[in-house]
Amino acid sequence: MQKLFMFEKPLGMRDTLPSLYETKKELRSELLRGIEQWGYQLIETPTLEYYDTVGSSSAIADRQLFKLLDQQGHTLVLRPDMTAPIARVAASKLLANKNPLRLAYSANVYRAQQREGGRPAEFEQVGIECIGDQTLSADAEVIALLVSLLQNIRLETFAVTVGHIGFVNELFLETVGNEERANTLRRFLYEKNFVGYKEHVKGLSLSSIDKQRLLQLLHLRGDENIIEDAMQLVDGERGKQLLLELQLVCEHLRSFGVSKFIKLDLTLLSHMSYYTGLLFEVYAEKVGFLLGNGGRYDNLLSKFHVDAPATGFGIRIDRLLEALGYCGQEPLIHSVIYSSDNLKRAIEFADERRKNGERVILQDISGLTNVDAYTKSFAQVSFFIGEQS
Amino acid sequence: MQKLFMFEKPLGMRDTLPSLYETKKELRSELLRGIEQWGYQLIETPTLEYYDTVGSSSAIADRQLFKLLDQQGHTLVLRPDMTAPIARVAASKLLANKNPLRLAYSANVYRAQQREGGRPAEFEQVGIECIGDQTLSADAEVIALLVSLLQNIRLETFAVTVGHIGFVNELFLETVGNEERANTLRRFLYEKNFVGYKEHVKGLSLSSIDKQRLLQLLHLRGDENIIEDAMQLVDGERGKQLLLELQLVCEHLRSFGVSKFIKLDLTLLSHMSYYTGLLFEVYAEKVGFLLGNGGRYDNLLSKFHVDAPATGFGIRIDRLLEALGYCGQEPLIHSVIYSSDNLKRAIEFADERRKNGERVILQDISGLTNVDAYTKSFAQVSFFIGEQS
Repeated sequence: MQKLFMFEKPLGMRDTLPSLYETKKELRSELLRGIEQWGYQLIETPTLEYYDTVGSSSAIADRQLFKLLDQQGHTLVLRPDMTAPIARVAASKLLANKNPLRLAYSANVYRAQQREGGRPAEFEQVGIECIGDQTLSADAEVIALLVSLLQNIRLETFAVTVGHIGFVNELFLETVGNEERANTLRRFLYEKNFVGYKEHVKGLSLSSIDKQRLLQLLHLRGDENIIEDAMQLVDGERGKQLLLELQLVCEHLRSFGVSKFIKLDLTLLSHMSYYTGLLFEVYAEKVGFLLGNGGRYDNLLSKFHVDAPATGFGIRIDRLLEALGYCGQEPLIHSVIYSSDNLKRAIEFADERRKNGERVILQDISGLTNVDAYTKSFAQVSFFIGEQS
Repeated sequence: MQKLFMFEKPLGMRDTLPSLYETKKELRSELLRGIEQWGYQLIETPTLEYYDTVGSSSAIADRQLFKLLDQQGHTLVLRPDMTAPIARVAASKLLANKNPLRLAYSANVYRAQQREGGRPAEFEQVGIECIGDQTLSADAEVIALLVSLLQNIRLETFAVTVGHIGFVNELFLETVGNEERANTLRRFLYEKNFVGYKEHVKGLSLSSIDKQRLLQLLHLRGDENIIEDAMQLVDGERGKQLLLELQLVCEHLRSFGVSKFIKLDLTLLSHMSYYTGLLFEVYAEKVGFLLGNGGRYDNLLSKFHVDAPATGFGIRIDRLLEALGYCGQEPLIHSVIYSSDNLKRAIEFADERRKNGERVILQDISGLTNVDAYTKSFAQVSFFIGEQS
């Protein structure tokens, strides 16, 4: 084991210095303002949760969990996401009258990383959960809110890609028949490995019609017209019903005036297991990575002994900053440099300006090692030194 | 090992529900506003740090650290305070030109707890660090800023108790002579066990004059007049010099107009080892517990290979809320309940109000289990249901 330098941070851990901090703060507060205006209420949950409760209910792979033992011998995890903790809170405290809850968060989540220079092991998510509402209106609302937030922060070009895991499951049930074979197919879609999917489908012992149906799925990406094409791929009532639901959500989204940001993609699978219905991902056109995602997860609450449907989304602040073309901006600070005899006058001067909202440092000149270097780092500098009239 | 209920949280871990969340948010932003106006810049550091760097540099007892192993076999800790991480950042990145840095934070810190129903294992601190300034002006500034913040948030009656560990060390050096005996005395003071201190001093093999000097220390609490009394207790120049420094800081605090909040207490020891000079604690009169503390720590930065004096303070948000007599206030939310045919009108109605800053929920009536119970939880409810003219 190598000896550590005193300055080192654990793998994937980062500092946020002042200029980035300010930009993050502004972005966060703009997002939260929008979320609050839609009636969602912010809550906070602990950084540490029991592995056996929240840890194992989360959608994050076990090897990505930071684990530790408490003094009673229980395994704890650093929360890998906020959906499971909020489900715990909702189930234990807030679902008394079975009516919908609209909760939100802005919180850091933790994912252990395997190698240097890779992804962050701690990053901030802002998100919402609408718990206890089974209606398609709730599905549409969370997408409309997501679009509204991204408009608020003036993200230029982005698209929310909407899929329906229920439909995909129906199609797989009708064609390959069992869960194991369906899982293999789902894994290809989850990894967006469409070439692998095609090869795999071709090798299956299925009728050529069923193979064709599975291959056709890959073309179900585009505008609302694909819903009609999708109708041809499923025989059963259930599959068709789910597509009608998707259509209804599209209508809702038109009422919300956000259709132009929506793309449909029935190959979408955001997690291997977690979502149960409508799901979506958001990408900005300029950058290749996922900014956020969400969807319906009607089975999670039952792990906390309450049957309640739910839907929501989470957005990554770090990636959003990158998509917005963040460039760190130093805050404007006025430094007042004084010598001891002038302390009182310097204080009065600073007080006056602080009252007007300015940021003012009071700096004793004898605390400076290099006055020239110091003054360069401020937007404005005033001197109160020596004898002054 | 007992099986966990699904709702359980680890020892000392708490949820922050909406009404408390809002109050905390307001308090935090008021504090940060004041801190920024004094020119301090906010930064964020990782939740996890290496034990061998930041963990072992912190002032928190080892048994209170949450520890885990990373995949390289290094021990990590959940940051137990923010002073050591900020020292790491300052030393590695920010102290290039050796001039003072004014940094601030609002962050959760972590302390493992031994028993149920006790102290929180995760709590939020807001604080500042002034790094690289050896002047007494810096000592006075951090105290004046602390008072200013507490005035901003209208904390009614509070006092900042100021001591000087340098003076105490000098007195002990002059009387008991060695560090081991001095440590025993310091421990009594640290634990505020004055009876034990007296007993112990009486039992020491010292001249009655030296015993008297040690006992007199306990009376050095009150206003600035105690400085003169203290002058009588030390023989050496060094001790007297430190008292003159304390006097100068008192003068500075008068210039800042905050003297009426200051009490002197030369028995004050905030940590067994950490502070090196002036130090202080803040209490509100109504509540018995410490709201925050701070002081000069000129040796910490050297652990990160940079010689730099430093001073700062941290305030506990949870205790401050209690001292302020926090009572949770539900935010005012307007819920618009609609049936499908009225979606568009409901959206228009909500949009209009959201633009005016109102918080408005759009709720599909078919998502409600109990309309009566639901409507009771909102400040205002509007209905868009059925056919309307």
